[in-house]
Amino acid sequence: MAGAAIRPWFRAGIAAEMKGDESPVTLADQQAEAVMRALLAERFPDHAVLGEEAGEDRPGARFRWVLDPIDGTRAFITGRPQFGTLVALLDGDTPILGVIDQCITGERWIGVAGRPTEFRGSYGRAGCRPCASLAEAELSCTSPAIFTTTEQPRWNQLSRHVRRVSWGGDCYAYGLLALGQLDIVAEATLKIWDWAALVPVISGAGGSITDWNGMPLRPDGDGTVLALGDPALLQPALLALKDAL
Amino acid sequence: MAGAAIRPWFRAGIAAEMKGDESPVTLADQQAEAVMRALLAERFPDHAVLGEEAGEDRPGARFRWVLDPIDGTRAFITGRPQFGTLVALLDGDTPILGVIDQCITGERWIGVAGRPTEFRGSYGRAGCRPCASLAEAELSCTSPAIFTTTEQPRWNQLSRHVRRVSWGGDCYAYGLLALGQLDIVAEATLKIWDWAALVPVISGAGGSITDWNGMPLRPDGDGTVLALGDPALLQPALLALKDAL
Repeated sequence: MAGAAIRPWFRAGIAAEMKGDESPVTLADQQAEAVMRALLAERFPDHAVLGEEAGEDRPGARFRWVLDPIDGTRAFITGRPQFGTLVALLDGDTPILGVIDQCITGERWIGVAGRPTEFRGSYGRAGCRPCASLAEAELSCTSPAIFTTTEQPRWNQLSRHVRRVSWGGDCYAYGLLALGQLDIVAEATLKIWDWAALVPVISGAGGSITDWNGMPLRPDGDGTVLALGDPALLQPALLALKDAL
Repeated sequence: MAGAAIRPWFRAGIAAEMKGDESPVTLADQQAEAVMRALLAERFPDHAVLGEEAGEDRPGARFRWVLDPIDGTRAFITGRPQFGTLVALLDGDTPILGVIDQCITGERWIGVAGRPTEFRGSYGRAGCRPCASLAEAELSCTSPAIFTTTEQPRWNQLSRHVRRVSWGGDCYAYGLLALGQLDIVAEATLKIWDWAALVPVISGAGGSITDWNGMPLRPDGDGTVLALGDPALLQPALLALKDAL
């Protein structure tokens, strides 16, 4: 449903408005979130809903939907089909359902706590791949500009240990990791609506997702995210991220 | 035809081989080039053919096909549908035909010297957009690691003048510029098979494509490429690229 609200705006020449924090936001963003909010309010009137664009409804409820209508607005604005609609359901602070939807390519990842991740799309299948060492790992990150000054040297250190780095992707890169196409995604300054949906998708595909200290992601965390296709990479990756401290 | 050779390998879990220069090359690359070479040899037996993977046939002919079966092998290897097959026809050193083909999304850009660029795809239409100043420009580049030490400060300077920078894309970013989705793509260390097909596509969409000194791209050039959706940005962009010299 969000896709139907987004597709008409893709490559349609809209001007991005600028929010106070200078992040780009578009009409597509706002309309897609409104559509999802209306549906959730009808189906789950007791659940809280937190969206990137329009704040939180019914705060304090046990179950909370967390929405990012267009994760990767920059990709969307520049016509790249690598943004995604993110939908998560949290029980308290724990994500128990996560969906990544790419409405242009028609790809969708569905993660449910305790179950194998499901992928709907023409190419690839759900499941992370093994990776014997950092030296063999494909690392990805959306942009070199997302790191703070304390995170930058930690990232630099990690990136020197891996085989290759590729750029761009937002949530789509985590989807690729859940398809066994990437081994590590390491990012920072992520908000809860950026990462909540990723947790069940990555976990259900056999991967690991934590912060840069190896701790579970939390709403009050530091915004760092480390996703690994092979959980055995956790200790070496954390060590590489520590070296620069 | 190249697409039919590439698609079976997309997200299929092949291991990338490593060439002597450490760039990734895959079976898909080699098979797609072989398919195109066979077709060209049959249809245009007098033409030269230069491909990234298998060198040059019939060097010295007036007409020369220049092929990059998978531009963006790194994107291909990591499962991103933003690589492309590039086919160019040169008359002497001048590209007169250029095709960018994305075989996963089914998008194709066709540029012929002196004619409007044609785009086949579900979203967007061919044609660069106007951009009043560098301060309003969306700039893109495949990777921060592609610059030499002399180019890096020039890029940094340009990137400080623009509205936003996004990363990733290879030839696909030039396609987005030809759809009016990006305003500037600035890259370096490109080979003739990386840029030859882009020239008729960008020119036929109303844009400008030169090196970082504003000169036409040439086989013996320095590998820098500056593509602009609005040719009026040429002087300010060149000035920004010069500041750091």
